[in-house]
Amino acid sequence: MSDKVNLARAFAQISAPWTPHIVGQLNGQEVKLARARGAFVWHHHAEVDELFFVVKGTLDMHVRDAEGNERVVRLEPGELYIVPRGTEHKPVAVDGDAELLLFEPQGTVNTGNVIDSLTREARIL
Amino acid sequence: MSDKVNLARAFAQISAPWTPHIVGQLNGQEVKLARARGAFVWHHHAEVDELFFVVKGTLDMHVRDAEGNERVVRLEPGELYIVPRGTEHKPVAVDGDAELLLFEPQGTVNTGNVIDSLTREARIL
Repeated sequence: MSDKVNLARAFAQISAPWTPHIVGQLNGQEVKLARARGAFVWHHHAEVDELFFVVKGTLDMHVRDAEGNERVVRLEPGELYIVPRGTEHKPVAVDGDAELLLFEPQGTVNTGNVIDSLTREARIL
Repeated sequence: MSDKVNLARAFAQISAPWTPHIVGQLNGQEVKLARARGAFVWHHHAEVDELFFVVKGTLDMHVRDAEGNERVVRLEPGELYIVPRGTEHKPVAVDGDAELLLFEPQGTVNTGNVIDSLTREARIL
């Protein structure tokens, strides 16, 4: 049977920023952990809704609506936000690293429709 | 666009134990919050893997393997555990309430294959 995941212990093993680490798989979805540092890249996922849960630190999620209006959703520890499919978004860690838990379908690429120097394949932790 | 969910604020609105409250939907899955109090009922979900994340309190997840051997996975805040489909399990809150976040497919019934006095339909919070 599978083991439990202790988030603090898992994040202690993650040093590279913006690199998704898979810690669980269920129903075709994955639970990933990522360390956020500074700004990520604007992107979207055409077919994928993406959940961000902040474990530690502060994350500003910049989102653009269909009309191109931008707003910022500030996420503190214990807060989660779902970016709907097709929505342009850019996560930015504020004041140091933020530790993030993501839920999304297996195989989701971190930079979505964009190929960038921050594009990373997910690793099994 | 959707709003963020603050788990502490959401749990302040949840008083009934073992009643799933939906706080997010994505990719055919749901994010649910539930207050655990005492023992739940043994059950399984034939087709559904179920993720439990402890936000507050302590949860003992009793699980039985295919040979009927029982073990207990103790979950503290910041720990998550995935119960694989078909696995008999019984969550038990230890020393007062535990606050749980669940991630599972839309329409999952809380008591799985069992109809019990604890069977509850999920509500939108």
